[in-house]
Amino acid sequence: MDLNKNKTIHISPLRRINVEGGDVLHVIRNTDHMFNGFGEAYFSIVQPGYVKAWKRHLKMTMNLIVPIGSVKFIFYDESKELIMKIEIGEKNYRKVSVPPGIWFGFVGLSKHDSYILNIADILHDPSEVERKPVSYLPLV
Amino acid sequence: MDLNKNKTIHISPLRRINVEGGDVLHVIRNTDHMFNGFGEAYFSIVQPGYVKAWKRHLKMTMNLIVPIGSVKFIFYDESKELIMKIEIGEKNYRKVSVPPGIWFGFVGLSKHDSYILNIADILHDPSEVERKPVSYLPLV
Repeated sequence: MDLNKNKTIHISPLRRINVEGGDVLHVIRNTDHMFNGFGEAYFSIVQPGYVKAWKRHLKMTMNLIVPIGSVKFIFYDESKELIMKIEIGEKNYRKVSVPPGIWFGFVGLSKHDSYILNIADILHDPSEVERKPVSYLPLV
Repeated sequence: MDLNKNKTIHISPLRRINVEGGDVLHVIRNTDHMFNGFGEAYFSIVQPGYVKAWKRHLKMTMNLIVPIGSVKFIFYDESKELIMKIEIGEKNYRKVSVPPGIWFGFVGLSKHDSYILNIADILHDPSEVERKPVSYLPLV
């Protein structure tokens, strides 16, 4: 693949609809701008203060949502240039859509476990994942 | 649609993978038995002890997962016959796949808010949803 293609991270606001007995939280629709087909959905939990870094996907487009807790994400391009850092979670409820080729790391900011939901366009495939140690890039 | 077709609720075990700093929780893959295409994903929160009932979808297949808290679901067929009741959540982490035509209600069993993730095969469409008051069927 050409890692220079489609390098844009897209941040979408998500609706939280007030419902008696418990709200409804939008996540993703197949008509959304960055929706690229459905491969797999999974949660990654991140404990308070824990850093998970660095990783990049060569094929997967991730759609990241944090319904519980709060998580800081940091994104770099392949030239090790910082693209973006963003905190999302219960209090900043957004979807972060990440095309392939981007290095990412994240930190749990909440006092309890934070839950990241990834709606991915392909199935989990270890051969399309690259990993580097935490020291590879600054956590800013 | 023929509401008698494909009336089977399917319960799938889901893996929770132990990872340092926070586990990974499987949700759904596009190769799963009951996967029927992807329309929309959303969370419904249910507060402790709150009852949300009754509702049925005429077109939507729901895939219900409770990553946080614990929820009791109750399902009836169109003859008002009880099909199934099941408690799922953090401690009984499973996916419940529900074809269209089935009445369902649910109750929050946790001391804190429970989160239900629905991976649905169609977009939200109020015209394919029927609702009845809580008194319509027994909560068993």
